[in-house]
Amino acid sequence: MKNYSEVYEQELINNVIPFWMKHSKDELGGGYFNCLDRFGNVFDTDKFMWLQAREVWTFATLYHEQEARSEWLEMARHGADFLAKHGRDAEGNWYFSLDQYGKPLVQPYNIFSDCFASMAFAALYKADPQEKYAKIAKDTFYNILKRQNNPKGKYNKAYPGTRELKNFALPMILSNLALEMEHLLDKKTVDDLLKSVIHEVMDIFYQQDSGLILENVNLDGSFSDSFDGRLVNPGHTIEAMWFMMDLGLRLNDQKLIIKATEIALRTLDYGWDKEFGGIFYFMDIKKHPVQQLEWDQKLWWVHLEALVCMAKAYAFTGKNECREWFDKLHDYAWNHFRDAEHGEWFAYLNRRGEVLLPLKGGKWKCCFHVPRALFQVAKTLQQVAEPAS
Amino acid sequence: MKNYSEVYEQELINNVIPFWMKHSKDELGGGYFNCLDRFGNVFDTDKFMWLQAREVWTFATLYHEQEARSEWLEMARHGADFLAKHGRDAEGNWYFSLDQYGKPLVQPYNIFSDCFASMAFAALYKADPQEKYAKIAKDTFYNILKRQNNPKGKYNKAYPGTRELKNFALPMILSNLALEMEHLLDKKTVDDLLKSVIHEVMDIFYQQDSGLILENVNLDGSFSDSFDGRLVNPGHTIEAMWFMMDLGLRLNDQKLIIKATEIALRTLDYGWDKEFGGIFYFMDIKKHPVQQLEWDQKLWWVHLEALVCMAKAYAFTGKNECREWFDKLHDYAWNHFRDAEHGEWFAYLNRRGEVLLPLKGGKWKCCFHVPRALFQVAKTLQQVAEPAS
Repeated sequence: MKNYSEVYEQELINNVIPFWMKHSKDELGGGYFNCLDRFGNVFDTDKFMWLQAREVWTFATLYHEQEARSEWLEMARHGADFLAKHGRDAEGNWYFSLDQYGKPLVQPYNIFSDCFASMAFAALYKADPQEKYAKIAKDTFYNILKRQNNPKGKYNKAYPGTRELKNFALPMILSNLALEMEHLLDKKTVDDLLKSVIHEVMDIFYQQDSGLILENVNLDGSFSDSFDGRLVNPGHTIEAMWFMMDLGLRLNDQKLIIKATEIALRTLDYGWDKEFGGIFYFMDIKKHPVQQLEWDQKLWWVHLEALVCMAKAYAFTGKNECREWFDKLHDYAWNHFRDAEHGEWFAYLNRRGEVLLPLKGGKWKCCFHVPRALFQVAKTLQQVAEPAS
Repeated sequence: MKNYSEVYEQELINNVIPFWMKHSKDELGGGYFNCLDRFGNVFDTDKFMWLQAREVWTFATLYHEQEARSEWLEMARHGADFLAKHGRDAEGNWYFSLDQYGKPLVQPYNIFSDCFASMAFAALYKADPQEKYAKIAKDTFYNILKRQNNPKGKYNKAYPGTRELKNFALPMILSNLALEMEHLLDKKTVDDLLKSVIHEVMDIFYQQDSGLILENVNLDGSFSDSFDGRLVNPGHTIEAMWFMMDLGLRLNDQKLIIKATEIALRTLDYGWDKEFGGIFYFMDIKKHPVQQLEWDQKLWWVHLEALVCMAKAYAFTGKNECREWFDKLHDYAWNHFRDAEHGEWFAYLNRRGEVLLPLKGGKWKCCFHVPRALFQVAKTLQQVAEPAS
């Protein structure tokens, strides 16, 4: 599938990365502009730590794994300097957002800011092995492990004891972060963490009866018949499944890869909108109305992560069904999300696949899912032969 | 406009109220079921304090102002007993939600739970003047005044000092609550509060240049060029404008009524979807992309509050434009929200006016906006003559 590989690589190098190189650098305030309209104009100057960190990760990773272009490393360092200088409170927790010049706006209530910060500095250390980068990555990582059982801390609004749920997102992200951090951690820490997150994802959150993964379960893993407990986020599941496939490769565990492929295929079938195409954002496992008003929208990251997942599933298992899904997802994503006129990809489509918000970067979209997916697909499919026709 | 008045009253008495009488009473756990599907089946048993209180208000108010049906008073008391028994923490703050049997689920981070609780008990005291109801209404009300400058308390995630915004919702709700509580408060408290909320709504949040009301402004009333600062919520504005008209009537201030009518008309024109009809949920005053993915959806309460607003504006000013808007809103709302087959009204439509979530009650919809609006329109239009044709 060299052809696909080349198409994805060209899109990454010639369309997507130039958009961010051109529009997102904030020379005045430091760091990156996250909020860019269709044309790349800055429409808001707030700095969201998730997104700043993710852009650092992207440029550092491309420099280290794609091509050692000095402007990419410089771009990564530019964001990292801003993060290192302004991103943390006195206890080392990462704020959620800062203003253009680095003054804190929103407190560190969200542990994923910390996850993406440690991922960013771990990647930057690979590209530029300065001890200060390793230290931030490690300090942040151990702080995450310390906070992981009560990630929201004092901002947690759940009353203790009535309905204690655990959420899928943290083990899911940790399953990716463990590999991203491996070069900075001792073997036992990595081995223990991998074992624990694989168990959480594949045994606790995965439901044998439905073949689906729930976003929230009771602490003992049982089903909670509540809005949170009934929630399925197909995009989350499918993204987590390619993290599992990477872990299967790393641990030489083909069974894990096969199981992850099965769950991803089941979830694609479940989450696919049979009327208008695309993957729903949120669903209720009992088919009740969900709380999320945006449930039927089609989001860029969901479809890009699904492309990565099916590329890997096909490369690692050779299953024809994965190839068919890849083709179907490719057609949907390239026809609906890609902006052929003004570069980069749209983020939010309505159920019918029409653009809902004409932005290229916003509070949640930045230089991350699109380039990471293009890079992952290109790399994965490089060595994969076309199926015999 | 007696014809409209009768149509709205019939809808209230024969369609909407019977739906809640039949489906929402929880004989086992106490209080009301809030989450009802299209047919009235309970799909979730959580009890949200906003909604429990609003249903108490509705039944108490109908008993007192529409007709003294004993089953309505009994229904109001049934909810009030549950609220009084389980709704508050040790400091008298109202939880956000409880489970079916009254165990706290979500902490009292949301001051509107308190607003609707005091409104509920104040209305119930009118219907059934027991001192215990007055005490809960007053204790809660004074607690709101104490908390109003930092309503989220320790759950406030804004970092102090960088961007201090104030939000429109609280003065807006207080402008209605002040009248709802008037029989329980001394004259000076009411007079001072009315003066202050009218100033906040009509001078601080209202923007002379655009003729619109912003959801959030800097503490000094100036514009904040940020996601929150740029946000316009047309439904909020329009609802607040009928609160202002009620205050204009109460204070014998025709200028206030005329100004509120102007702002409401301007907002309707601004918020109306010229392509598909209906009023948008969220807009950005600088036409930038908003954060709210549900921005283009059509919500029941927005349209029902707009009907109340235009009914009052027409009744109080006689302006023909208000009558035209009433007709237009009536057609849209009755054709899109009303469920002719299974009773009550739908809540959430997509931009095209198609049902997005087929529920009659959920986390935010209950026995409140539909019956209150039907009651208000019916009462308002009873004495209004048809315009000369």
